[in-house]
Amino acid sequence: VSAGKERTAATWRDASAALQRTLLGALPAHHPDPELDRFYALMREYPSRGGKHLRGRTVLLATAAHGGDPTAALPVAAALELFQNWVLVHDDIEDASEERRGRPALHRLVGVPVALNVGDAMHVYMWALLLGLANRPGFDADAVRREFTWMIHRTAEGQHLDLTWVAQGRLRVSEDEYLQMVHLKTSAYTVTSPLRLGAYASGREPHPALARIGERLGAAFQIRDDVLNLTPPQAAGGYGKEFAGDLLEGKRTLILVHLLAQAPSDTVAEVERRLAAPRGERTADDVAYLLGRIEAHGSLRYAQGVAERLAGSALEELRDVLADAPGAEAVTELTQLLESLTRRAE
Amino acid sequence: VSAGKERTAATWRDASAALQRTLLGALPAHHPDPELDRFYALMREYPSRGGKHLRGRTVLLATAAHGGDPTAALPVAAALELFQNWVLVHDDIEDASEERRGRPALHRLVGVPVALNVGDAMHVYMWALLLGLANRPGFDADAVRREFTWMIHRTAEGQHLDLTWVAQGRLRVSEDEYLQMVHLKTSAYTVTSPLRLGAYASGREPHPALARIGERLGAAFQIRDDVLNLTPPQAAGGYGKEFAGDLLEGKRTLILVHLLAQAPSDTVAEVERRLAAPRGERTADDVAYLLGRIEAHGSLRYAQGVAERLAGSALEELRDVLADAPGAEAVTELTQLLESLTRRAE
Repeated sequence: VSAGKERTAATWRDASAALQRTLLGALPAHHPDPELDRFYALMREYPSRGGKHLRGRTVLLATAAHGGDPTAALPVAAALELFQNWVLVHDDIEDASEERRGRPALHRLVGVPVALNVGDAMHVYMWALLLGLANRPGFDADAVRREFTWMIHRTAEGQHLDLTWVAQGRLRVSEDEYLQMVHLKTSAYTVTSPLRLGAYASGREPHPALARIGERLGAAFQIRDDVLNLTPPQAAGGYGKEFAGDLLEGKRTLILVHLLAQAPSDTVAEVERRLAAPRGERTADDVAYLLGRIEAHGSLRYAQGVAERLAGSALEELRDVLADAPGAEAVTELTQLLESLTRRAE
Repeated sequence: VSAGKERTAATWRDASAALQRTLLGALPAHHPDPELDRFYALMREYPSRGGKHLRGRTVLLATAAHGGDPTAALPVAAALELFQNWVLVHDDIEDASEERRGRPALHRLVGVPVALNVGDAMHVYMWALLLGLANRPGFDADAVRREFTWMIHRTAEGQHLDLTWVAQGRLRVSEDEYLQMVHLKTSAYTVTSPLRLGAYASGREPHPALARIGERLGAAFQIRDDVLNLTPPQAAGGYGKEFAGDLLEGKRTLILVHLLAQAPSDTVAEVERRLAAPRGERTADDVAYLLGRIEAHGSLRYAQGVAERLAGSALEELRDVLADAPGAEAVTELTQLLESLTRRAE
């Protein structure tokens, strides 16, 4: 590990602590009424469980890359992390998730009605944080807020496609349909908007190519995440989620899209039969069968290859687009962070 | 009916049509992808079912009363109606409601996950509408947006108290606790914020007394609504909701608070036993028993009396506060509208 790499890692670690402070500082802390005090604690529950602040750190590095001041962009980055947190509260309800960051999902602790309302309240605190930002030279607060509306609209549209496929029991989606869903659901808030927010927080117009760069990097990130979920623990390093949990959940992934497109019709029918069972009724035998078919048809390798191609071409274009950006060192850190996201082994 | 009263009613009817146009105009209409086109239609579902636009019309009349231009306040009033609509989508999930405006609740049509996400998307379109407003002389857009954050924070806190009482099976709440909950959950967005938004949309500072006036009028409105729900249909005129539906739902009302405070302990135990059953297990016999006890202890009359006292003193203070307001005719219409809300027979 070079000295330069150590400094970079330290920068991220420090930024994560500052992000966490700003994020928690944007949520209410205490109320004289004990039950409303508990309500405030529930809003702080997911943020307090930690997280890697990948998206917030991308905003800070993108700001520095565009010549802006990352300290001034902290509230923007923290608002993005707050977005991630309220979305997770609602996503966990929508996906009937059991755990989040190593503890029970919020609705498993307090029930769906209370958890849903906690997510709504967090959503409004995100807007309160954003409304507190003022336009000034080198900082376009109005554009930051518009970017948030664009981003959340896209995320909700992608979520709608994903949830509708589950609700309708639709497993056969084309690769194009899958990528459209992921561009909306994951890429917008994971890469495209963090990059563009860094431009607005520096008083600059984002390069138009950031949209298509973000789409591909976000898709590569999501596909890599799905591949890791199906990689046996000894090979996946410190990946923290339950091995093959995606198969138990019946999650739509590029791996499944490939398998259903490649397998012979009797295998497809059997895969569909085993995935049609309601969540909770799938067994270890189902998972073993599905992993076997995925292995036999090379679907993991295929998905990994798609992720690498998408990430490779997008990172190359990103380096081109930011070649003359004012913050040369930050550009290097930024591309390293995005590369590590899409190629990470844990 | 005097000619003046006819003109007033016509003004409200016209405003309702304009509100509906502005509200629907703030939501997306069409998407080339059929499933995303359906997503947009789901966002328009509750708004398209109509509604009386009571809160939006209060904003418009409060604007005119403060000397502002109601036409310029239309987006503010429509944003408030959009707030009401996304909250209803989420409330219906939280309360496991079956119907909304005479049709199945959204989650009964598309399932909880899709409906929850539709509500989130509507919430963001509300903010997009508000972010489109610009400060100008006689129109304080920043204050309008801050009022929305204050209002939604309060509504969520009140909703938290109500949902927590249900989740914990807590029926015995004091009248003070009940009023605190209603001030937060109902009064803020039904009266206080509509009145204050009218001031900001006229470039004026709201009178500090509007907060306590709004609390009492909002509580009177909620209590009157609860009384109507338990008034037999032949006596309740055109009240559109299911008679005694609140008892089937086990809703916390001032009527129940009074009954549990007044009845002897064996009656209290029996009332609690019958209300402890999960929703859907309560029978017509339970409802008949509860109505009998409510009648025997005068709880309906008591609640009606509280509502009348709250509304009477609040309306008197409102007339005082607005005595020198620039829009004298609008003040009359505004107080008539608020009076009709709290004294309505349907």
